[in-house]
Amino acid sequence: MTIFETLESEVRSYCRSWPVTFDRASGSRMWDVDGKEYLDFFAGAGALNYGHNNPALRGPLLDYLSSDRVVHSLDMNTVAKGRFLERFQEVILKPRGLDYKVQFPGPTGTNTVEAALKLARKITGRESIISFTNAFHGMTLGALSVTGNSMKRGGAGIPLVHATPMPYDNYLDGVVPDFIWFERLLQDSGSGLNDPAAVIVETVQGEGGINVARLEWLRGLADLCRRHELLLIVDDVQMGCGRTGPFFSFEAAGIVPDIVCLSKSISGYGLPMALTLFKPELDVWDPGEHNGTFRGQNPSFVTATAALDYWSDNRLEKSVLRKGELIEQSLAEVVEPFDGISTRGRGLIRGVAFDRPELAGEVCREAFERGLLLESSGPEGEVVKLMPPLTIDDDDLAEGLTIAAQSIEAVAARELVGTTSGANR
Amino acid sequence: MTIFETLESEVRSYCRSWPVTFDRASGSRMWDVDGKEYLDFFAGAGALNYGHNNPALRGPLLDYLSSDRVVHSLDMNTVAKGRFLERFQEVILKPRGLDYKVQFPGPTGTNTVEAALKLARKITGRESIISFTNAFHGMTLGALSVTGNSMKRGGAGIPLVHATPMPYDNYLDGVVPDFIWFERLLQDSGSGLNDPAAVIVETVQGEGGINVARLEWLRGLADLCRRHELLLIVDDVQMGCGRTGPFFSFEAAGIVPDIVCLSKSISGYGLPMALTLFKPELDVWDPGEHNGTFRGQNPSFVTATAALDYWSDNRLEKSVLRKGELIEQSLAEVVEPFDGISTRGRGLIRGVAFDRPELAGEVCREAFERGLLLESSGPEGEVVKLMPPLTIDDDDLAEGLTIAAQSIEAVAARELVGTTSGANR
Amino acid sequence: MTIFETLESEVRSYCRSWPVTFDRASGSRMWDVDGKEYLDFFAGAGALNYGHNNPALRGPLLDYLSSDRVVHSLDMNTVAKGRFLERFQEVILKPRGLDYKVQFPGPTGTNTVEAALKLARKITGRESIISFTNAFHGMTLGALSVTGNSMKRGGAGIPLVHATPMPYDNYLDGVVPDFIWFERLLQDSGSGLNDPAAVIVETVQGEGGINVARLEWLRGLADLCRRHELLLIVDDVQMGCGRTGPFFSFEAAGIVPDIVCLSKSISGYGLPMALTLFKPELDVWDPGEHNGTFRGQNPSFVTATAALDYWSDNRLEKSVLRKGELIEQSLAEVVEPFDGISTRGRGLIRGVAFDRPELAGEVCREAFERGLLLESSGPEGEVVKLMPPLTIDDDDLAEGLTIAAQSIEAVAARELVGTTSGANR
Amino acid sequence: MTIFETLESEVRSYCRSWPVTFDRASGSRMWDVDGKEYLDFFAGAGALNYGHNNPALRGPLLDYLSSDRVVHSLDMNTVAKGRFLERFQEVILKPRGLDYKVQFPGPTGTNTVEAALKLARKITGRESIISFTNAFHGMTLGALSVTGNSMKRGGAGIPLVHATPMPYDNYLDGVVPDFIWFERLLQDSGSGLNDPAAVIVETVQGEGGINVARLEWLRGLADLCRRHELLLIVDDVQMGCGRTGPFFSFEAAGIVPDIVCLSKSISGYGLPMALTLFKPELDVWDPGEHNGTFRGQNPSFVTATAALDYWSDNRLEKSVLRKGELIEQSLAEVVEPFDGISTRGRGLIRGVAFDRPELAGEVCREAFERGLLLESSGPEGEVVKLMPPLTIDDDDLAEGLTIAAQSIEAVAARELVGTTSGANR
Repeated sequence: MTIFETLESEVRSYCRSWPVTFDRASGSRMWDVDGKEYLDFFAGAGALNYGHNNPALRGPLLDYLSSDRVVHSLDMNTVAKGRFLERFQEVILKPRGLDYKVQFPGPTGTNTVEAALKLARKITGRESIISFTNAFHGMTLGALSVTGNSMKRGGAGIPLVHATPMPYDNYLDGVVPDFIWFERLLQDSGSGLNDPAAVIVETVQGEGGINVARLEWLRGLADLCRRHELLLIVDDVQMGCGRTGPFFSFEAAGIVPDIVCLSKSISGYGLPMALTLFKPELDVWDPGEHNGTFRGQNPSFVTATAALDYWSDNRLEKSVLRKGELIEQSLAEVVEPFDGISTRGRGLIRGVAFDRPELAGEVCREAFERGLLLESSGPEGEVVKLMPPLTIDDDDLAEGLTIAAQSIEAVAARELVGTTSGANR
Repeated sequence: MTIFETLESEVRSYCRSWPVTFDRASGSRMWDVDGKEYLDFFAGAGALNYGHNNPALRGPLLDYLSSDRVVHSLDMNTVAKGRFLERFQEVILKPRGLDYKVQFPGPTGTNTVEAALKLARKITGRESIISFTNAFHGMTLGALSVTGNSMKRGGAGIPLVHATPMPYDNYLDGVVPDFIWFERLLQDSGSGLNDPAAVIVETVQGEGGINVARLEWLRGLADLCRRHELLLIVDDVQMGCGRTGPFFSFEAAGIVPDIVCLSKSISGYGLPMALTLFKPELDVWDPGEHNGTFRGQNPSFVTATAALDYWSDNRLEKSVLRKGELIEQSLAEVVEPFDGISTRGRGLIRGVAFDRPELAGEVCREAFERGLLLESSGPEGEVVKLMPPLTIDDDDLAEGLTIAAQSIEAVAARELVGTTSGANR
Repeated sequence: MTIFETLESEVRSYCRSWPVTFDRASGSRMWDVDGKEYLDFFAGAGALNYGHNNPALRGPLLDYLSSDRVVHSLDMNTVAKGRFLERFQEVILKPRGLDYKVQFPGPTGTNTVEAALKLARKITGRESIISFTNAFHGMTLGALSVTGNSMKRGGAGIPLVHATPMPYDNYLDGVVPDFIWFERLLQDSGSGLNDPAAVIVETVQGEGGINVARLEWLRGLADLCRRHELLLIVDDVQMGCGRTGPFFSFEAAGIVPDIVCLSKSISGYGLPMALTLFKPELDVWDPGEHNGTFRGQNPSFVTATAALDYWSDNRLEKSVLRKGELIEQSLAEVVEPFDGISTRGRGLIRGVAFDRPELAGEVCREAFERGLLLESSGPEGEVVKLMPPLTIDDDDLAEGLTIAAQSIEAVAARELVGTTSGANR
Repeated sequence: MTIFETLESEVRSYCRSWPVTFDRASGSRMWDVDGKEYLDFFAGAGALNYGHNNPALRGPLLDYLSSDRVVHSLDMNTVAKGRFLERFQEVILKPRGLDYKVQFPGPTGTNTVEAALKLARKITGRESIISFTNAFHGMTLGALSVTGNSMKRGGAGIPLVHATPMPYDNYLDGVVPDFIWFERLLQDSGSGLNDPAAVIVETVQGEGGINVARLEWLRGLADLCRRHELLLIVDDVQMGCGRTGPFFSFEAAGIVPDIVCLSKSISGYGLPMALTLFKPELDVWDPGEHNGTFRGQNPSFVTATAALDYWSDNRLEKSVLRKGELIEQSLAEVVEPFDGISTRGRGLIRGVAFDRPELAGEVCREAFERGLLLESSGPEGEVVKLMPPLTIDDDDLAEGLTIAAQSIEAVAARELVGTTSGANR
């Protein structure tokens, strides 16, 4: 029995899928203590968009840490924070015509979501939030109340209220016009829907099964929010920082959310950091009304500032889109012969969905044995998730896709042989 | 206007009290961009118990970061996590006879509190939590619901329920026997109190105004919890890691909580990290039932492991107690001539309380001008809080106490001159 | 100013529409203090299905009250209660093959709904209830939480939670397959819907605008509840006791709800009384767990017992259906020439809906001036509601319909002249 | 098996203590179907203050019902309602200098409490209500949330929130100064108490165990409410209408609540009726914002008007106080020889409390066998409750007290013989 098994709580999960001990990591690769190498198409669940130990970020980080600079500062002004703010404004906000104010909540995704929800409720004086089916926003009580997964909701131990789920794009398989139910509830004073403060949405649902909202659906949602005076919160914790191509995942839809949540890859180096962005007229916080001990993490500011260099032109965005297409083509070819498998995704977040949910897990196990880290997602774990670092080079990408293809084919050959008319739901 | 004023949200607070930009920090001292030096009796609100950029921690951190080791790992097994667990068991748990399981929730204080509350509710099937007057546990919805401060509670934008406050030790000025109300509510099936899952308590309330619970009160509370089958959660986020002397603040009382929350100084270097500890029979989590992107921060594990060396013997504990006594003696002398000022505290968490709340803020301003960082706490900000690094040397301590004394005396001389019978509440 | 205006609260409503003081009433007619006569197509909002002062009920009532029999008895056994129970079993339950247990909650509609919701939650251990758009179930907090009307919900002064609205039959104008959304939410473990204890439904929504659920929709709902193990509660407070033809409004659909709520016309005489019926295996109440001072109203039991004579054969049911058809034909002819008016209803609950909501109120005002009591319903008050006593004779019915027709035509002529293509929604 | 046992729900309770079927009743006496006579010291749980079938009320009731007057009218103006309002103003409000507005909510105690709570929340914009230990206010969700009994609370099936219990007078046996905890919570912005809208209190807790609040405690509470701008709601459902002597139970304390709840004996005849009274400036209801089918019960208005004749002078009040003293003296003599029994009460609500709770139930059983109806109350059912009609004559009172004394003595002799130093708690 390892120290993890004897001392750590049963709550641990990834170590069960990948039962090794990792030691080293670089770029798109990790190594365990026995020296076995793994290609990483998991990327810290989206926290490692620039790869492991990216030298362009590590340099400034080591310089900073070596020279007695302020590490921990809450919301004091520091040189490192000032530089990040200036660079974020220059590289991200200004070129996109965004005049967001920047809040540094606690340095995690769930914390920026909590800040967003609190702010939306404070601004509007309304309690209710609209979330979407299969949304994932975090594990603290506010964020959990707008998260769909029933196992995770059950962990709350109290009824999760003040949130109402609406159907995400294509939830009802295209049978139902977009927003017909949501809009009718809002229009009808007798509908029984508590007047919502805000809508919180992911443009692509990662944990929910790589569900991709069409751009026109996102535009429709933004329009609905505008007409009914609901605040629109985009949780870009996983899909932001370039995962879908542009820095913000909502850029492609041409919408401007009222509030944006960022975390995961904003520090760029896997270090904790989060931002809550909102239109200046929404900045109704009192000083200290939302706080947190680690809201001023200067090492994170340093790597985040360095990572912004990737956004000084559109090369990374283009590269992400190009590599995303490569993956899509590759996967489409792999699954084409089989019934009951399909592909989905946008940019560098890609999925392979199985009608028989357990097959996704089997593919991940096959891949792990072959040296590729893949996880499954979706309510039944039915989707294999491919999420390599954005900075992956073409050779690594090709190698990973080869292993993914072999893994899918191994499972399909074993489990789906002979199916000619698959179990389409 | 600085970038902080133009771009950052109005929610920022410390930068208003200390309107400079900090750049460097070492041990007990910080420097702003103009090179002005400050003695730091604030210590990252308790996150910097071992001082800024402590070389004993920085060495291993730089080594780790320089050598392509895994930085970000969620709850995968890593060498760095394994070493921390082994060392934590060896140095902290075993010598104290504690058999806690260790959970790594998201790396913040509020996250470990959320995990603790969720777990307590899941274990017991009850929703209600008992908190204490002037408690502070965090800003996400679960933790906020057990926090006392009305301004911060107001930020939730929804009614905060499932929590009932009880009087903290000495809340009613000694007029009322300990726990008479709490115990009667629990005994009486007609009391109307929802059957609680757990009690959450700080042994010393830092944000609440340096309110120190007597050890016999803590023992009484533990006994009450045992008799009524309530889980006892000690939030040791600020008071743990040696702030009151021993590693856990509850050790002096001789009690063993069911669940313990640690964060702030557990990484030792101001890096985000948190632990939730609980008795093994309480480990009812399902895998992944509580998670978080930054729950596996290896740089934090590395510094945390190094920081545990401070606990391989009892020298730090003794030193904290000795320096705490020094502060108490010094402050007692300073305030003795004045009515309406009193001292409080334990170990290296010390306070000077003013009957006229605004004077505490004035003292902090005076101190800042003299080069000493002090903040106020308490519901009206009426207590000046002295919380130097545990590792402060005697010279720095003496210098800081001199400035503190000058600052108190300056305010008292200006505001309290001539009072012979102060406004005792 | 009358005593009503000077002393009674602003909450009063019907007296504003009908600003006279009523004194006498008999059958389908009422008279005000000035002797002016009114035909009553309102019937106590459904509490006077057998008309005012029905002699067949009054006789036993006066006998009972004149002879020192027990009036008030909580849930003591009384002769009058025993006779009601026996007769209810004999005339109502047995012939329909129903083996419901009978609870006497407090004597109001909202109280039987509260009892039903509490019981459903206790049985299932789940908190959430599914209600429908434009439902009306009552004004106390439990019943109000499953009621749709936003003005009435606003009166709660607290967020109304633990209830989620689903679309009532035809809510989305037939565009959407029945239950597609509801069923998907239940099937999908990631939907974010809290697992419901029960569904509460009216077979025809009276206050909600005379929305008539198709029988196949009701059957589909019952089937969905069975498959997903949700308790089905039919709130038959207004539609039961023969309003739609059969004694229970759900009989026509051939379904058997788990729990049934009755009130309004169960006493038959306008006296307060309510029943909660449920399958015997659901009778998990502890003694006294739901109580109420007026749950044993013997005068109500006496008139209720007499009223059951109407159900010893199927003549009343047939008569209701016949008269309902008469109304429908009459109204259809009246509205046919006009755009923007339509009819709806079942049995003796009928409505005339206006695309321009304010016209419904105008029709009611015209009718009142002509001596006919009609009220409007629906979220915007857009439906004129025709709900005469079930026992109305054909002459009174014809007279009332004539006035109704005149009133509709007067408004339509004034407001809708020249419209050839009405504003169909 | 009787029809009650086979058909009625397990929720029934009184019929278990008194397993007979009652048929007739007059004044202070009831008879079962076998002709056995019972003295009634229960009085419909306070709904029969003027006795059973009081001829002074029955006459007008029979006249009214015999003459085709309006029975059921919601909130339409009727002659009967107008007369009640005028008489209520003349006999009750004006002489006491009260300018309350009158609301007719649904005709039950729980409904007037729900109306009061909703109104208080609407007025203040705050959600939280302060209730007291061992309070009883009703069984619908709003009223239940401010009720203390844990068995009844458990029936809700959802967490009951938005209410916080405070200690009722003498709850902590006089050890603690009145309101010290409540006031401190209100004064301290860090206490964690949600800002309350209102306090709801019974001047004597009937169901809670005949707990009598001292008049100075009630004055202290009113003063505290005034100073902290909390609305004071007196729930006079059981203690009003003369039960403690004066018409309103709070008159003796010289306080004027903001809102008053009346029901039970307001109709005087055991017929359902309820009032919510409030200061005119609090009348912020929108028309129809709180409603209910049976809020206009004219038979109740008729008997209520007749019952007000009892209050045209102070004879009833004096008589109640005199008879209350008689009971107290009688009971005091009975219990004096025994340890572990004590008396309590005010006016004609009196209790005998047993240190061994089960003895109270035994006394009630002994009394029933001897022909006297008594019930127990209190969280453990530890108090025998004596609550005869206010109009009981001296002979009936004496007879009842004799039986009560015999029953107490029988139990005490059997169970407490030989105790010389009883089990004082």
